Amino acid sequence: MTSPDRNAEERNLDEQPGADELEEKLVAEKYAHKLIRKLRIRLADEPGMLARVASAVGEQGGLIGDIVILAIDSHAVERSITVHVDNESHLQTIILRVRSIAGVTVEAVEDDVLKVHENGKLRVESNPRIETLRDLQKVYTPGVASVSQLILKEPQRFRDYTWAGRTVAIVTDGSAVLGLGNIGPRAALPVLEGKALLLDQLADVGCVPILLDTQETDEIVATVGHVAEGFGAVLLEDISAPRCFEIESLLAQKLGVPIFHDDQHGTAVVTLAALINACAATGTELESLRLVISGVGAAGAATAKLLVAAGVSEMICCDRAGAIHEGRTEHMNPVKHELSRLTNRSRASGSLAEMLSGAGAFVGVSSPGLVTGEMVASMSEPRIVFAMANPLPEIMPAEAVAAGACVAMDGRTVNNALAFPGIVRGALDAGATSITDSMKLAAARAIAESAPDGMLLPSVLDRQAHAAVAGAVGQAWEDQG
Amino acid sequence: MTSPDRNAEERNLDEQPGADELEEKLVAEKYAHKLIRKLRIRLADEPGMLARVASAVGEQGGLIGDIVILAIDSHAVERSITVHVDNESHLQTIILRVRSIAGVTVEAVEDDVLKVHENGKLRVESNPRIETLRDLQKVYTPGVASVSQLILKEPQRFRDYTWAGRTVAIVTDGSAVLGLGNIGPRAALPVLEGKALLLDQLADVGCVPILLDTQETDEIVATVGHVAEGFGAVLLEDISAPRCFEIESLLAQKLGVPIFHDDQHGTAVVTLAALINACAATGTELESLRLVISGVGAAGAATAKLLVAAGVSEMICCDRAGAIHEGRTEHMNPVKHELSRLTNRSRASGSLAEMLSGAGAFVGVSSPGLVTGEMVASMSEPRIVFAMANPLPEIMPAEAVAAGACVAMDGRTVNNALAFPGIVRGALDAGATSITDSMKLAAARAIAESAPDGMLLPSVLDRQAHAAVAGAVGQAWEDQG
Repeated sequence: MTSPDRNAEERNLDEQPGADELEEKLVAEKYAHKLIRKLRIRLADEPGMLARVASAVGEQGGLIGDIVILAIDSHAVERSITVHVDNESHLQTIILRVRSIAGVTVEAVEDDVLKVHENGKLRVESNPRIETLRDLQKVYTPGVASVSQLILKEPQRFRDYTWAGRTVAIVTDGSAVLGLGNIGPRAALPVLEGKALLLDQLADVGCVPILLDTQETDEIVATVGHVAEGFGAVLLEDISAPRCFEIESLLAQKLGVPIFHDDQHGTAVVTLAALINACAATGTELESLRLVISGVGAAGAATAKLLVAAGVSEMICCDRAGAIHEGRTEHMNPVKHELSRLTNRSRASGSLAEMLSGAGAFVGVSSPGLVTGEMVASMSEPRIVFAMANPLPEIMPAEAVAAGACVAMDGRTVNNALAFPGIVRGALDAGATSITDSMKLAAARAIAESAPDGMLLPSVLDRQAHAAVAGAVGQAWEDQG
Repeated sequence: MTSPDRNAEERNLDEQPGADELEEKLVAEKYAHKLIRKLRIRLADEPGMLARVASAVGEQGGLIGDIVILAIDSHAVERSITVHVDNESHLQTIILRVRSIAGVTVEAVEDDVLKVHENGKLRVESNPRIETLRDLQKVYTPGVASVSQLILKEPQRFRDYTWAGRTVAIVTDGSAVLGLGNIGPRAALPVLEGKALLLDQLADVGCVPILLDTQETDEIVATVGHVAEGFGAVLLEDISAPRCFEIESLLAQKLGVPIFHDDQHGTAVVTLAALINACAATGTELESLRLVISGVGAAGAATAKLLVAAGVSEMICCDRAGAIHEGRTEHMNPVKHELSRLTNRSRASGSLAEMLSGAGAFVGVSSPGLVTGEMVASMSEPRIVFAMANPLPEIMPAEAVAAGACVAMDGRTVNNALAFPGIVRGALDAGATSITDSMKLAAARAIAESAPDGMLLPSVLDRQAHAAVAGAVGQAWEDQG
């Protein structure tokens, strides 16, 4: 880290983009919240036809991406036109307008996102290939019986001769999915499969999604407890606060394998990593930073606790009722009580705006739009702003910078996917039975150290960063004995 | 089917074997119950050394398989010698004897079976590959949210956009594993992975093993009920009778996906298939066959019920206490009561030997050695003997044939793996919510029809047979409406 990074997102992409990177960059920044569709259209083979279509899309406020010729015959040209639109009804307006052009037919509307999700994103593969009856007798009866007997005799060989040593379960009750809320486990499965895809491709960890048809804490703990034996770790996903705290804690006591709730600890680890580098870049000591956290759900509570463990001593957590302090009695729960003891030593009370005045850093994991430019301006140097509310931040990074923030990022840059693949890989490699604070701190430091010069965080696609996290986490487990 | 097949096993292998097939054939027949190991040995480079080693192995009663040169230097030759031995202590005796030869060192003893099981036989793979941030945004946030929203809006799309449409769970409590008994779920995992491997490679079905750390019926039903939602079907495996009957029945009532216990129904289906062809080959009507079943555990009870559904009307089931009949009060359980009403119309009582006298067919899923040549000789034509006890049959097929059996097979030939891959694939393809008797009957007929001329059953590795089963099962589901 050599200098503050006012536009981490932009620099996270290639400096000299080619055609693909350019489209990617556009999508990442300008079009991030738009729908992307491909219109497959047939145009009469006359000059000016494409211009008419492009004008029609533009007049209706649609943005055009790639245009590709699919087929040409003597009468017409078939093209695929990528359009970026605000929502489904905007799309329909544009299609209606394009259809009204003489000589143009819209053959199909394709959705690239849906397309890559067809039949799901995971599958269970098996090895070795069986070609002969002899192969079959090795992997199935009668040969397999000798492997079962070996595990019976030497239980520690279980992970050597089964998939359990490199496969984890990811479980959800679908109660808090992305910014979508309590949509149930079935609608959550594509998200779980996405997470499993990242674990596979970024850290070579196999991951099995398991959908729980109950949202009762006791039933979840009993069920996960009964099925955990066949996996090397259990990841909780998209389970709402405050139930997630109790479920995680009960399972951690019960299970002999690591349990990890990314919505809590992944966010905490990546936030700490970005904060370490933001402090270094601005010449601030983490220990003397005055920091305000907005939001004490799963992510907020875990982040607050990890920052305390990392040495941040001046911290105030706020919820909708304002600062959390010892002695506050309204809108409390066990986690808030715990935070009231760990943070806010001066027992300050008041609103988020009052707490932000004079603070050096803001960490938001709450709701869109809660922070104004004036509130940022009221902060003290270095004015570090991590506004990570989903789907839109507490304040847009550009607005925070305009108000004097030295560093401003939103949740797309401070991405959990930097943390969980390496943490899980490292825990499996070390044969860890839990994920401790020292492992999370080691993960945050490894992520911070993996950031390229001038950046707060490495790219999510930087495989070396994930390997560094895995190594640091495994080492931390061994160091603590 | 054109003629009775007195040696089905032998003909199941290629008629004109090459080197590989020859070894395979030897392993399948002569060496089936032997341990196979590879001795990696270094022999001084002198004439006669290999002969000394071969003599030493032979003198101790070891059989030699392939011999392969691994390396040659100026002083010695390194070879891998495959030996087939009776058990571990036999192996140690042979190694000791080989080591005593001057100029020979045993460098390593390798176990091919263990080797193919290293790190397990399954892994979760993901697609598409992510190369750019744009790819990431399609498969993970923010893109994946649109897939979740689609499933929320149109629940019937769940299987189109997740892995649930082509992935099943296979669950065990490890209470009845192969011939090994109640060895617990961990030692059972290699068997489950083997079954999953067959489902993948024979029927393109992904299969996730789930280990249950409880053997309580209520807890198993509750747990499986809570996790079934994310799978297209649930397979029960290696769960002991009579608990397996109640667990299957309670889950079938509870779940909206098919539930299938291969130890019951796989055996039943393959037995029926072989019986159909054995009857055809011997000119016997299934409906008029007098049949005795020995064993009313998971496999025996299900086989008896399916044979009744197929039209076998003269059947007597025997357990250790002899024939099961209405009015018998000792050693009964709910399934035996059910069988006493479905079978044994004449309410015959007596021992297995007494019941076999005059019977046309014997189906054994009980214990090794229960049937003698004299008992087979006391049967009537066609004397069909399926002796399928695990790990050794009620009577060796050769002994049964010598005593006058027209057809005699053991459990290695009447192999469940002919049934379950196609049944599961067919149920998934048809979107079935249960596996009905008519689907099992259709599967048995499809297997019977897939047998090559002169054989009772097709090879387990015959992919077309599995496809035929899948098609017939799906059709049967649709036909019943």
